[in-house]
Amino acid sequence: MSIVAVGSIAFDTITTPAGRAENILGGSCTYFALAASYFTQVRVVAVVGEDFTPAHAAVFTRRGIDLRGVEHAKGKTFRWGGQYLESLNDAKTSFTELNVFEKFQPKIPLEYKDSEFLFLGNIHPDLQASVRQELNGVRLTGGDTMNFWIRGTRRELLDTLQVVDVLLINDAETKMLAEEDNLPRAAQKVLALGPRVLVIKHGEYGATIFFREGAFGIGRHPFRAPALPIEEVRDPTGAGDSFAGGFMGYLASAGSLNREVLKRALFYGGVMGSFAVERFGTERLESLTREEIDGRFQVFRELTHLE
Amino acid sequence: MSIVAVGSIAFDTITTPAGRAENILGGSCTYFALAASYFTQVRVVAVVGEDFTPAHAAVFTRRGIDLRGVEHAKGKTFRWGGQYLESLNDAKTSFTELNVFEKFQPKIPLEYKDSEFLFLGNIHPDLQASVRQELNGVRLTGGDTMNFWIRGTRRELLDTLQVVDVLLINDAETKMLAEEDNLPRAAQKVLALGPRVLVIKHGEYGATIFFREGAFGIGRHPFRAPALPIEEVRDPTGAGDSFAGGFMGYLASAGSLNREVLKRALFYGGVMGSFAVERFGTERLESLTREEIDGRFQVFRELTHLE
Repeated sequence: MSIVAVGSIAFDTITTPAGRAENILGGSCTYFALAASYFTQVRVVAVVGEDFTPAHAAVFTRRGIDLRGVEHAKGKTFRWGGQYLESLNDAKTSFTELNVFEKFQPKIPLEYKDSEFLFLGNIHPDLQASVRQELNGVRLTGGDTMNFWIRGTRRELLDTLQVVDVLLINDAETKMLAEEDNLPRAAQKVLALGPRVLVIKHGEYGATIFFREGAFGIGRHPFRAPALPIEEVRDPTGAGDSFAGGFMGYLASAGSLNREVLKRALFYGGVMGSFAVERFGTERLESLTREEIDGRFQVFRELTHLE
Repeated sequence: MSIVAVGSIAFDTITTPAGRAENILGGSCTYFALAASYFTQVRVVAVVGEDFTPAHAAVFTRRGIDLRGVEHAKGKTFRWGGQYLESLNDAKTSFTELNVFEKFQPKIPLEYKDSEFLFLGNIHPDLQASVRQELNGVRLTGGDTMNFWIRGTRRELLDTLQVVDVLLINDAETKMLAEEDNLPRAAQKVLALGPRVLVIKHGEYGATIFFREGAFGIGRHPFRAPALPIEEVRDPTGAGDSFAGGFMGYLASAGSLNREVLKRALFYGGVMGSFAVERFGTERLESLTREEIDGRFQVFRELTHLE
């Protein structure tokens, strides 16, 4: 089943202990779409500038990703610079140039309207809400957000959370959104704000999925998936978006939604995040095979599986 | 099979968001021994002062723990004060009074000499080595250490690591000991220093076990156990020692050592740590049943188990 993904396409300049890359293709929507493309048909809604070339578009189209919802605007594509010199878990932003992203107004092509799944990437909550409203026939909406929106546009975000079924955020964002320092308690508070399912990404420690009582008829016991202990993390950029792409992509491919499907989706999220960090930018996500992905799924399973 | 545990018995004064307790029974050896006592016969080597009463001793003996190796010295028992007001993951020490612990020289009773398992709690590495030497017939030695010894007595610690089979430490200690910031790489470096098995405790994120190539003939793939998302953490003191007690206690009870046994031990470690934090001090560890423990083991298993 198709999934619409709205978010950013960007050019990133990244410095890590493993090296440096300038103006490489990035952005939350890019990582999400590439990761999800191994599971399902992905349709992108985003904006790019005149520096976005056919070679950049081909990174998406080679993976069968639909770009009809990508607006080509006058000016330069969103640019971000970051470095991970002190810690691989924490990017230090060196610059942000919003460029064409500043006035981004998502436009949904008519051909996208029959999509059954939707992922609202990390953009202004009002834009997220407007996309959700246009695609009001979707079966399931996933969403992301960040400290910037939680702090600066809390009221708008709380409105948007009413229409998000599955929220995917990290530990710090969960605690900030819930205004509660104990993570499991914070999770319950976030579930009371709207989402039926909350996926908390713990970075190198994996992720935990919390369910609102009665959601999908599956009870409220949380479930945890590990992350792979990776010796060679070359570039952590996009790990969280790739996680979301693997998670939502697998859900969209599964047909039915139940506890076991959501558990497997959590593992597939971890798998796609683990691939993303092995190379700079999107390199690793561009050339995977489903066999490699399922092979690593088995490694993840073995990592915590008791006989 | 019996396990000898050497370490501290203390009186703790603890402040957490859930309350305050003064001069309650604590110490690494106490938590370890109580947790391990649900799995195997535990024999303690430690020192206490004149303020250690028969009521305190009864906390151990009610659990069948052998106290013949506990020296009663003139003076006061080791005292520690700590608070967890900013973060439940990080104790702030308010005071340390070593008292009788300052001149602690572990003495091993003859009756302990047939023990097959040994746990070297967090004391000076030279003392750890001397205990190990006296008990040179043991089948397996577990050990703990901390930043204080890694920084201050590195040479002595490196010597002691030659006789430790399983080292149980946390993320920060692993990175400090290996002088390496990437955790899986740090793990490999620590395994090259002596231990055949390294258990890294991640606090609320669980634990990972790393194996040296060829150790126990089980290959080098790591294994990870989750921690339970606990809404009511009343007092984190002793969680790591209780983890070690559950882990080593289960190993000592299992008879044979193989990959599956070590995996289950990692889960039992998490289970005992999760009980410890539910009440102040040792309260919860004093009155468990094996049924409660195995019930929670199943909860932990379900937490990551894919069909």
